[in-house]
Amino acid sequence: MFQPSMHKPSGQGPTLGILGAGQLGRMLALAAAPLGVRCVCFDPEPEACAGDVSELVCAPWSDLDAVAAFAKRCDAITFEFENVPAATLRHASTLARVDPPVLALETGQDRLLEKQLFERMGLSVHPYEAASTAAEFAAACERVGFASGSGTGVVAKTRRGGYDGKGQAVIRSREQISAAWVALAGSMDARKDVLVEQFVPFERELSLIAVRGAGGAFASYPLTQNRHQGGILRESIAPAPSVPASVARHTARYMHDLMDALQYVGVLAIEFFLVRDAAAEDGARLLANEMAPRVHNSGHWTIDAAMTSQFENHVRAVLGLPLGSCEVRAPSVMVNFIGAMPPARDLLAIPGCRVHDYAKPARAGRKVGHATILDAQADDPRVKRVIELASAADARPV
Amino acid sequence: MFQPSMHKPSGQGPTLGILGAGQLGRMLALAAAPLGVRCVCFDPEPEACAGDVSELVCAPWSDLDAVAAFAKRCDAITFEFENVPAATLRHASTLARVDPPVLALETGQDRLLEKQLFERMGLSVHPYEAASTAAEFAAACERVGFASGSGTGVVAKTRRGGYDGKGQAVIRSREQISAAWVALAGSMDARKDVLVEQFVPFERELSLIAVRGAGGAFASYPLTQNRHQGGILRESIAPAPSVPASVARHTARYMHDLMDALQYVGVLAIEFFLVRDAAAEDGARLLANEMAPRVHNSGHWTIDAAMTSQFENHVRAVLGLPLGSCEVRAPSVMVNFIGAMPPARDLLAIPGCRVHDYAKPARAGRKVGHATILDAQADDPRVKRVIELASAADARPV
Repeated sequence: MFQPSMHKPSGQGPTLGILGAGQLGRMLALAAAPLGVRCVCFDPEPEACAGDVSELVCAPWSDLDAVAAFAKRCDAITFEFENVPAATLRHASTLARVDPPVLALETGQDRLLEKQLFERMGLSVHPYEAASTAAEFAAACERVGFASGSGTGVVAKTRRGGYDGKGQAVIRSREQISAAWVALAGSMDARKDVLVEQFVPFERELSLIAVRGAGGAFASYPLTQNRHQGGILRESIAPAPSVPASVARHTARYMHDLMDALQYVGVLAIEFFLVRDAAAEDGARLLANEMAPRVHNSGHWTIDAAMTSQFENHVRAVLGLPLGSCEVRAPSVMVNFIGAMPPARDLLAIPGCRVHDYAKPARAGRKVGHATILDAQADDPRVKRVIELASAADARPV
Repeated sequence: MFQPSMHKPSGQGPTLGILGAGQLGRMLALAAAPLGVRCVCFDPEPEACAGDVSELVCAPWSDLDAVAAFAKRCDAITFEFENVPAATLRHASTLARVDPPVLALETGQDRLLEKQLFERMGLSVHPYEAASTAAEFAAACERVGFASGSGTGVVAKTRRGGYDGKGQAVIRSREQISAAWVALAGSMDARKDVLVEQFVPFERELSLIAVRGAGGAFASYPLTQNRHQGGILRESIAPAPSVPASVARHTARYMHDLMDALQYVGVLAIEFFLVRDAAAEDGARLLANEMAPRVHNSGHWTIDAAMTSQFENHVRAVLGLPLGSCEVRAPSVMVNFIGAMPPARDLLAIPGCRVHDYAKPARAGRKVGHATILDAQADDPRVKRVIELASAADARPV
């Protein structure tokens, strides 16, 4: 990693601080460099992969003196990881401008606040209830998912701290309720706050990624279609095929309103489920599932297939620069590499396959890279080949 | 800059050593990172701009112990600067594979060897003579540029060490010959080796950038049209408009032969003059002017407007990976920023303008960045706007 004391004095360009130095920080730093922006990442992990391409300050999140020293060197600060402690972020924000706003981070860290925000902004959500004890949980599951006419089960999620499918349980029969509570409660701290959502069969998972500038400018990428497995994103298709025009239009408008309401600056992602609804215009509607107040895995295709990547647009926004076009340059499919990277030579031999290796050591369940196949639809043989290579790499012992 | 002793151990990816850490090294490192390739640059200048995005080892070119320590850490070594001393490169090549081959570097460092290579490979060149004394120089100028029927002047160039228009003199009358010798001789070391080329009016300047893989695979970008001023590249238009098909085809074939002959691995650029010639097929032919055994300024448009950039293809080639497609994604115009960068917010407000700021302090005559305007022809108003901004920035006192 960089040795801060040896670092050369800043040229003309601004210095951007990034809290977190994982792959999102790495891709932010790679997008910032061509703009003449110098990045400094902050992460407790000395081997965090953004440290290969930017300066890395290594200290615990709780070391507020280190946070202050870091913040004083930055013209602006952002974060790549939504579990940055809000106290860390608030401390940094007393010394430098922090975007997206801390309120957005805190909302995104709490599934209940998030759902309440979606509802206030007019976005549809799954029927839900909050619970904090075993009894409340059982009652909520009954009312939301099993009482006559109310559904065929629930998805229970911890209010805070879950990601990539962790801290979630699908409950399809009453007999599973008490075991689910024990499992979820065991993964939480003293506060046992759980959200119980109705299980609603969905047709597809979609996400919307948008960016808002410091002066209120707004731009959004087209909806992306995502496939998760085991709670982890596996593939994205961009633009999402066959989305009714009314759905796309309404979703972008709600996103715009929501970002204005939060006085949001930077990239924001919202994940949706597309459900069939005969009563809705065009027969379908979106249920907002969760938001990520940062660049998002389902937007990685924008590096290679949009006029301006989500990473560059985030950097532009938080530094008060004009936003770039979100126009699509080519339809594409993104495939995540989980656990281990396939051999580079196999991937690079595939025409139109853009490879992104995060240079992280292999580990089961870990996102270690992705590829974007350009000018591709889901059924493209090149996509199938990349998925095969991804599966083979993931299956190898590490 | 990075502190080598603190550097994290290599993950799965290879380490690429780059001799030189200027903007070409910086863009190589930015292209290498997504492939999971870690770069280490070597440069005598501690503030060299590639040090922002990669590890930088700082030592004089002549410090062969430092070169050896650097080389031992690398899986492959390349260079971004053709004036790396050949002794440095030869020493490195005893410890790690170095590409492009040292022979190509030495040829590119010497205008006479370069011309002889072009001729051997069947490429047309300007009529020329070599000279090493004032008397030889005067005689060569007379024969090549002023004797009856032989032209209307010469361009005299030092055989070694010139770049960006330095070490050159245009001689349009016999009276200028002796002053030109004094000026050129003063810029050289003890060996006063000069090349005298016939002045040939040209229609346009073109360049060809191609890449050859370790196994002999070959790919070339389309010809690019370049405008120089004061010996410094100002703009490139890619693909070059209205080039006769026969010219493009022949040029790529000669390039392929030349790279095979040199057993070349990596990106090679050759600059040409397009001259009208009624006797030639399609009425035009190319005169090969010089070659650069490295990534080249006239290929910067490939970052944003080709399927695979010249930087990524160079990295792929020198690491023995499959080459990427050189297909054009959009016609584009590249504008260099000389002296100082225009304000980022002005550039980023221009639709389809991709900005590359090398984060170098402003200095007269220095290349500090470039922009590529996508989906553009030379007469696009956006191009004019970028050129205006470039001129205004260059004219500001620094």
